[in-house]
Amino acid sequence: MQTQALDADVIIIGAGLSGLGAARRLYERGAKVLVLEANDRVGGRTLTEEVHLGEKGAVRVDKGGTWVGPGQKLVLELIDELGIEKIPTYSTGLHIHGLAGRYKRKKGELPQLGPLALLDLGRGMLQLGKLEAQVDPEKPETAPAADSLDAETLQSLLNRVFWSRKAREALTPLLRLGTWIEAGELSSLGFLQLTAASGGLNNNTGDISEGPQAWILKGGTQQLSEGLAKNLDVRLETPVQGVAYGEGTEPVTVTTEAGKQLRARYAIVALPPMVAHRLHYAPALPAPRRDFMQRMLMARIIKVFVFYEKPWWREAGTSGHMTTDEGLVCETYDYSKPEKDVWGLVGFIAGKHVPEALELSKEGRRQAVCEQLARIWGEDRARTPIAYVEHDWTAEPYSLGGGMGLQPPGVISLFGYAKARSPHGPLH
Amino acid sequence: MQTQALDADVIIIGAGLSGLGAARRLYERGAKVLVLEANDRVGGRTLTEEVHLGEKGAVRVDKGGTWVGPGQKLVLELIDELGIEKIPTYSTGLHIHGLAGRYKRKKGELPQLGPLALLDLGRGMLQLGKLEAQVDPEKPETAPAADSLDAETLQSLLNRVFWSRKAREALTPLLRLGTWIEAGELSSLGFLQLTAASGGLNNNTGDISEGPQAWILKGGTQQLSEGLAKNLDVRLETPVQGVAYGEGTEPVTVTTEAGKQLRARYAIVALPPMVAHRLHYAPALPAPRRDFMQRMLMARIIKVFVFYEKPWWREAGTSGHMTTDEGLVCETYDYSKPEKDVWGLVGFIAGKHVPEALELSKEGRRQAVCEQLARIWGEDRARTPIAYVEHDWTAEPYSLGGGMGLQPPGVISLFGYAKARSPHGPLH
Repeated sequence: MQTQALDADVIIIGAGLSGLGAARRLYERGAKVLVLEANDRVGGRTLTEEVHLGEKGAVRVDKGGTWVGPGQKLVLELIDELGIEKIPTYSTGLHIHGLAGRYKRKKGELPQLGPLALLDLGRGMLQLGKLEAQVDPEKPETAPAADSLDAETLQSLLNRVFWSRKAREALTPLLRLGTWIEAGELSSLGFLQLTAASGGLNNNTGDISEGPQAWILKGGTQQLSEGLAKNLDVRLETPVQGVAYGEGTEPVTVTTEAGKQLRARYAIVALPPMVAHRLHYAPALPAPRRDFMQRMLMARIIKVFVFYEKPWWREAGTSGHMTTDEGLVCETYDYSKPEKDVWGLVGFIAGKHVPEALELSKEGRRQAVCEQLARIWGEDRARTPIAYVEHDWTAEPYSLGGGMGLQPPGVISLFGYAKARSPHGPLH
Repeated sequence: MQTQALDADVIIIGAGLSGLGAARRLYERGAKVLVLEANDRVGGRTLTEEVHLGEKGAVRVDKGGTWVGPGQKLVLELIDELGIEKIPTYSTGLHIHGLAGRYKRKKGELPQLGPLALLDLGRGMLQLGKLEAQVDPEKPETAPAADSLDAETLQSLLNRVFWSRKAREALTPLLRLGTWIEAGELSSLGFLQLTAASGGLNNNTGDISEGPQAWILKGGTQQLSEGLAKNLDVRLETPVQGVAYGEGTEPVTVTTEAGKQLRARYAIVALPPMVAHRLHYAPALPAPRRDFMQRMLMARIIKVFVFYEKPWWREAGTSGHMTTDEGLVCETYDYSKPEKDVWGLVGFIAGKHVPEALELSKEGRRQAVCEQLARIWGEDRARTPIAYVEHDWTAEPYSLGGGMGLQPPGVISLFGYAKARSPHGPLH
């Protein structure tokens, strides 16, 4: 073996949380690791940036992944290790849930429903829960009804399972909040795989402090990747053009877009599948693996922050948490920094509302978002923010979307999830 | 304007039939046209190659698009213009249709069904025909039920429309023959758009001589692109890396993978959408347009040819046309050259059978295909071909599949078909 000619034992392409996590573990075991990152920063879909709010000074804002919840054991360990402070998400007061133009202030996660729709919702959720229990998140293709579940969209599954239109309508915006794409784009099997992997559909207590939005991190989530990257050899602004690999112990050659060639024993492609698909592989990846990457969906998200002089939603006895099935923003949370007298809401434009929103200018989106908040809360002050900040994850060339990867119909049953993810020669 | 500095009025990326067709029309109107092609040949998804059959000499074989039918007016005009001879597809004798392990020899395109299933099939086809009549192939998103049709897979639509399992089972392999992907991957709306564009679901007379497989071309279909390319400036083996474009009258710069920069007033990207998605655009294309390209599916096809000493299927009174719902090959036609004493069948491995087939070696596929033909025809001679030829279109790096582009659920209604296809600045 020509160890002396190699640039590293392992080249890791992508300095997001998963790439850096892998790099860190290999580094701690003594491997020589080289991490290549296309952007001018580490963190991938976590991105913390300073926003200047005039007299109130600057605040750090999480434009990507924001919250952690008690279910995320590995992330919580890392947070403790790095000594980052967790701040509970503000959840005092009533939440607002909108459905078909009616807005109710209440505790808990469900919009107001009549008794029949509520009964149907309960029955349907139990039925979905039973299907979910048959899906192994690591091997969804082995579920008893895998082929037929994968041949229908989540929308079709909901149409089958819920008899009441009201129950379906109540659920659709909540599902958009969970996946950030439309139920008509997603495989039923892929959806159940996702919910099974994240603790179960019926595991939501409706209490923010027990859910995935339980805490924000003081200083922002990008500290996680910065912490992982410490002492690692990370090359920023180094987009990769292609990967050439051989058989057995032959080294891997990674070519950057600038034309530089780097060699290692192994390479780990730690990119969102749709982005990994755009690299050139020599020899070409087997078609099933390539199709699996190409076909995966990324969530469609524009994240918006609106900062105000005063927390008018808190003054009105609401928590700032809102869900709705109409308008650009489908969900909000409080995003204030009381110690700096900074008061803000964070919201999501997601799924089918993203192409709509992109038809507007940024100023048009600002107005539409503020107008929507003013209407929902019945509060004029929502129209006069001191700052509006947005981040369109669908425009990120090295993410091609936000949130997580999701499966369209037909892909899991055709290619098999486990097989499509297994290493291919020296590529992982 | 800096006309003197431009390499062409229009640069066309991709020398398939559509790229060359556009180039030809512009050239005939006096425009300076430059066509860039990644492969070492023109023709895209049409590919004619010589196959050597020992003593019988060499024959030209269409490894890509093979047939033309009376519905393809523009192609028929081109064939006449180029003086290419059309040869009727051999269709004398009975066809073989297999369903659930039973094979029937008959005229016409449908497997044997009981009276109830046949009734249901007729009723369901009428219902599909009514839905189809509401879909404008150029603007499918304007159909009355567009959103709900686009939120379900073709499989779900079939499950809704056909009450008889037998009728559904009879239809599924026939649909695979029409789309070469699985009904569980395809948008119902996208499917109806496709059938509406190609003359209607209920327009199939079952007579080969009136259908899209009516003729093959003497000398092969690649002559069409070679004819179109005549006198044009086509640069082969010139894969494109990216396209930079500005506003208004600013020229477009096309950068090849070898690093050469070419400038023109306009550029036409005449690539399959999934392949066009892999180019780098500066500025980035709007996310909806990019997603539309990324999400489109290409048909999954391995085309196989098996040549024999004698036409044993003709001797048995069959035409060589066979359809089945089991085994690797889902459809065959006669592909003989009687004037050369060459006797062959052409078949398709399609949809879900492609990943299965790619698990085998080429020799394994040859054996599986010949064994399948021997079993279906009850004919030992099928096991001893003089040549087996195959072409895996999913492995073509600049096609990423064969056949045509198809829509998965959710894409048309989100982005709009008409809008996603309209020119973007100087890019067409």
